[in-house]
Amino acid sequence: MKILKGNITNPAGYTASGISAGIKKSGKKDLAILFSRVPAICCSAFTQNNFAAPPVEWCRKIRAEEQLVRAIFVNSGIANACTGRKGHENCTLIAGKCSDVLNIPMDSIMLTSTGVIGQQLPMEKILPGIEKAAIELNIEGGEDFAEAILTTDLVKKEIAVSFEIDDTEIIIAGAAKGSGMIHPNMATMLAYITTDADIEKEVLEESFQKALKKSFNSITVDGDTSTNDSVFLLANSMAANDKITKKNGAKEFAEALEYVMTYLADAIVKDGEGATKICRIKTQNACSLEDAEKVSRAVANSSLVKTALFGNDPNWGRILCAAGYSGAKFDPTKTDLFIGSTLLVENGEPTDFNAKLVSGYLSAKEVEIKIDLKKGEYDFTATTCDLSYDYVKINAEYHT
Amino acid sequence: MKILKGNITNPAGYTASGISAGIKKSGKKDLAILFSRVPAICCSAFTQNNFAAPPVEWCRKIRAEEQLVRAIFVNSGIANACTGRKGHENCTLIAGKCSDVLNIPMDSIMLTSTGVIGQQLPMEKILPGIEKAAIELNIEGGEDFAEAILTTDLVKKEIAVSFEIDDTEIIIAGAAKGSGMIHPNMATMLAYITTDADIEKEVLEESFQKALKKSFNSITVDGDTSTNDSVFLLANSMAANDKITKKNGAKEFAEALEYVMTYLADAIVKDGEGATKICRIKTQNACSLEDAEKVSRAVANSSLVKTALFGNDPNWGRILCAAGYSGAKFDPTKTDLFIGSTLLVENGEPTDFNAKLVSGYLSAKEVEIKIDLKKGEYDFTATTCDLSYDYVKINAEYHT
Repeated sequence: MKILKGNITNPAGYTASGISAGIKKSGKKDLAILFSRVPAICCSAFTQNNFAAPPVEWCRKIRAEEQLVRAIFVNSGIANACTGRKGHENCTLIAGKCSDVLNIPMDSIMLTSTGVIGQQLPMEKILPGIEKAAIELNIEGGEDFAEAILTTDLVKKEIAVSFEIDDTEIIIAGAAKGSGMIHPNMATMLAYITTDADIEKEVLEESFQKALKKSFNSITVDGDTSTNDSVFLLANSMAANDKITKKNGAKEFAEALEYVMTYLADAIVKDGEGATKICRIKTQNACSLEDAEKVSRAVANSSLVKTALFGNDPNWGRILCAAGYSGAKFDPTKTDLFIGSTLLVENGEPTDFNAKLVSGYLSAKEVEIKIDLKKGEYDFTATTCDLSYDYVKINAEYHT
Repeated sequence: MKILKGNITNPAGYTASGISAGIKKSGKKDLAILFSRVPAICCSAFTQNNFAAPPVEWCRKIRAEEQLVRAIFVNSGIANACTGRKGHENCTLIAGKCSDVLNIPMDSIMLTSTGVIGQQLPMEKILPGIEKAAIELNIEGGEDFAEAILTTDLVKKEIAVSFEIDDTEIIIAGAAKGSGMIHPNMATMLAYITTDADIEKEVLEESFQKALKKSFNSITVDGDTSTNDSVFLLANSMAANDKITKKNGAKEFAEALEYVMTYLADAIVKDGEGATKICRIKTQNACSLEDAEKVSRAVANSSLVKTALFGNDPNWGRILCAAGYSGAKFDPTKTDLFIGSTLLVENGEPTDFNAKLVSGYLSAKEVEIKIDLKKGEYDFTATTCDLSYDYVKINAEYHT
């Protein structure tokens, strides 16, 4: 597998664009289209929030009908969430406009929106924006797309990798946006992954679900699951490879896909609102996967742990405390806790560790906490960031 | 019912003291004793955390044996949590010392500790401290007691009320400490309630459980449930009233107790780390009490809602979003949302409300959010505070 300097338009057959339609007051790019020259098979995952936004419901309906996908529309600035009947009508208008200007069926178009909740989309800006974005579609448009999907994100998140099957190069690429409301089972998190692989639908779905669990569903920034989270994976078969099946290339494809999705998920956490570092919370040797998940996620979501991480404070007590209220079953008197390679707690009691050394370790950009329950054989890793002054600043000032 | 200027030594038969034993580096008071002249019946509630601290386990054991209570020991500064075998041994030493100097049975002594997790108690300071505190026990010692139990709290939390049954005055009083790790089903929250009522054990227990649910188990500061949370209610019958039974005075007692416990719980939230305001999250007309609780608690724990509260931002989208991921079953298109008396969302869609007006309302010290699910008949109110810069400051700098 090779890491390319590239983005979602690197795989064959995709074009994209990102323009300023005037939705954001700042004048920054806020509307984008991803287009596949030929129909693509598609995997997707959506928010579990009861207030799923109209664009999410639009996509769910199309996905339920197993339609092939030709294009994905996205706007940033306004999420079209909690917008009722009018929000749904606007989805139909947007898909209709995309269908007209791109000359593709309405039910081959996915819709995504991110931004402020509860405002109606300014259709007088969006509809002309779609025309403009359609005209600007081009094979180098991936970067503009990655820029136009951002809200409070500080940096673009994009990646492309390639690998070979029987001497044919296959590319997988992706773009994503965070950065608040990031939580397991989606967040205000949008991710778009493209590949030119020719691949069996079942193999694609299996690789996608596996990578999803290890990537977007293992991260958290602030514990809030948003109304709009969506992840899409399109495969348009334009690489003209021998079809990937369970027996041919599935493993290589799955590895490359997991790399792309994990890279994007990590990039979202690193760019979490106010984040200064990323932290992996590994729970080992739990009696069940559920227990391992509960512990890792409780620790990853603890505001007290996250502020301690910000302060480079080896506050193992807060970590154990979060594990303790996670609801997981384990024996406190058997629990070990490591920060980096330093053992801080052995069998539930603190060791005589060097606090200055561990504090130094915690000042890095990427750190690891390991909780060993020494009971069963299940592991789970959650990825989180610290909680800083800037998190409060961003979220107290990002107004409705 | 009358509100008195008083504290836990107001009810007849109680003495208390609070001294500096040198556990806190600051030299502030850090060790206290509450003493009842005669054996008191006792109700209690403890943390659900799997890492319950040794003092909690000590109390649980005594409570399981239904022993009458004579005294409660408390130290602040170090929580004696995650301290293993030595932590348990220290509990035995402390109870033994209290037993000696107070001349009461070891199993009539409750133990509580709060502060940093994972450090062993400095017994060379604690044991002499107990002698000193025992000498200083006096009927005006309630205030010193309330001061000595604090950690990062900014203010003392104490109250006393009185009411009459058949012309006999009965007093209920309490002291509590917060202020981080405050979460339903206890927090680093210690509360001590005293009454001189003569009351049947079953009536006492029923009043206690009901008040507990509406007070300490409905508040949250940061979603973290601590290792040491404990609430105690002692009734020593020194008022010499006609015994309170289901048919005689139970209602009056329950009302006064609920007032005391709710007052203390609110005081904890108001003094939440970095809190600038208190907010009640009322969920109405849910299909079940569980659903009402889930919605109120998800909203009360959302960092995004709490930062919006800090910014006086009527960000109803974040509120609905939290309700949406709470796991409660309800119809989003039937949901109404009020901030104060202003209707912001009707049937899942925003109204044309005056944002400036609502923002002005949110700048008060005490505000209310009401979510009406318009489906069933169950209500639940959670009480929370906002998330400010100071929360991060306090928790990034309060080192292990």
